Amino acid sequence: MTLDELIVSRRSVRQYNEKKVERDKIESLVNAAIWAPTAGNLQLLHFVVVRDKGVIEKVKLFSPGMPKTAPCVIAICADLEEARLRGGEFAEKNTPVDSAFAAQNILLKAHQIRLGACVVKSYNKKSIGRILKLPGAMMVLMLITVGYYDKRPKAPARKSLSEVLHYENWESEMKQDE
Amino acid sequence: MTLDELIVSRRSVRQYNEKKVERDKIESLVNAAIWAPTAGNLQLLHFVVVRDKGVIEKVKLFSPGMPKTAPCVIAICADLEEARLRGGEFAEKNTPVDSAFAAQNILLKAHQIRLGACVVKSYNKKSIGRILKLPGAMMVLMLITVGYYDKRPKAPARKSLSEVLHYENWESEMKQDE
Repeated sequence: MTLDELIVSRRSVRQYNEKKVERDKIESLVNAAIWAPTAGNLQLLHFVVVRDKGVIEKVKLFSPGMPKTAPCVIAICADLEEARLRGGEFAEKNTPVDSAFAAQNILLKAHQIRLGACVVKSYNKKSIGRILKLPGAMMVLMLITVGYYDKRPKAPARKSLSEVLHYENWESEMKQDE
Repeated sequence: MTLDELIVSRRSVRQYNEKKVERDKIESLVNAAIWAPTAGNLQLLHFVVVRDKGVIEKVKLFSPGMPKTAPCVIAICADLEEARLRGGEFAEKNTPVDSAFAAQNILLKAHQIRLGACVVKSYNKKSIGRILKLPGAMMVLMLITVGYYDKRPKAPARKSLSEVLHYENWESEMKQDE
């Protein structure tokens, strides 16, 4: 698939089958994440990958946003105290945003290798941190469920370009031509 | 290029040449952004694309993080009051994060069509909002400079997988095998 095809045909997949996600697949996902840009190139993100069913059930208990089942959960984490120490307020504020750059690479790579994935933003940070035994100020910034799936969800409609693209400024959009 | 090649060979490009970024290229960038996931599928992001040199100079005055010159600046914006109204605190908090999912698609698509791009997170929100004539509670979440370039920057070193990838939990990483 071309990049455009990958981008457009990617879906948030929330229903997975039982097949285990292989270690080499996980490594290719996290490798894609590593190459996303980070604020000040600080590279503070860590990736805790959970495949143990018992641990996933525990994570699910504290994650109302999680799909019913998932064979694999990737927790993107960072130490925001380290962020502040190394890059000041700027890094502390932007490192959580960095997790989304990394996540989008994971979503595209997952789709390319026929894995489904879904971002989970609704979870209890402290509880998940404890379950994953995160040290000190390391905290979960985002969860991504990953797994194989039998049925690809339909695409939710997207706004058209003309609804969201503005040239030069908000008001002059109708005057623009090439 | 394969997705892996695109992801790994993308750079933050901060030096551009004078060539204008064509409208169809801009549309392909914003179209890639539209297909990124958004919190609650609310699709609140707008994209204000500036190519006017005078406006870009004004934006630069209030953006210490911006490269010296850029033939094109994409401002990713959203109305966070609308976010709160439609999706509560969850959407208000996560819509800024959505801008990074969209931005990563823009960065990858730019690289694929041989454009350089760089995310700018350090800027004066109010001033840039005024320059772009944003209405009401619409605000700038991220700037991306875009342009053609003569020289591709070298890759900054990345951490290795083993430094950032942990299995099951933070402490058990050394025990994992397949």
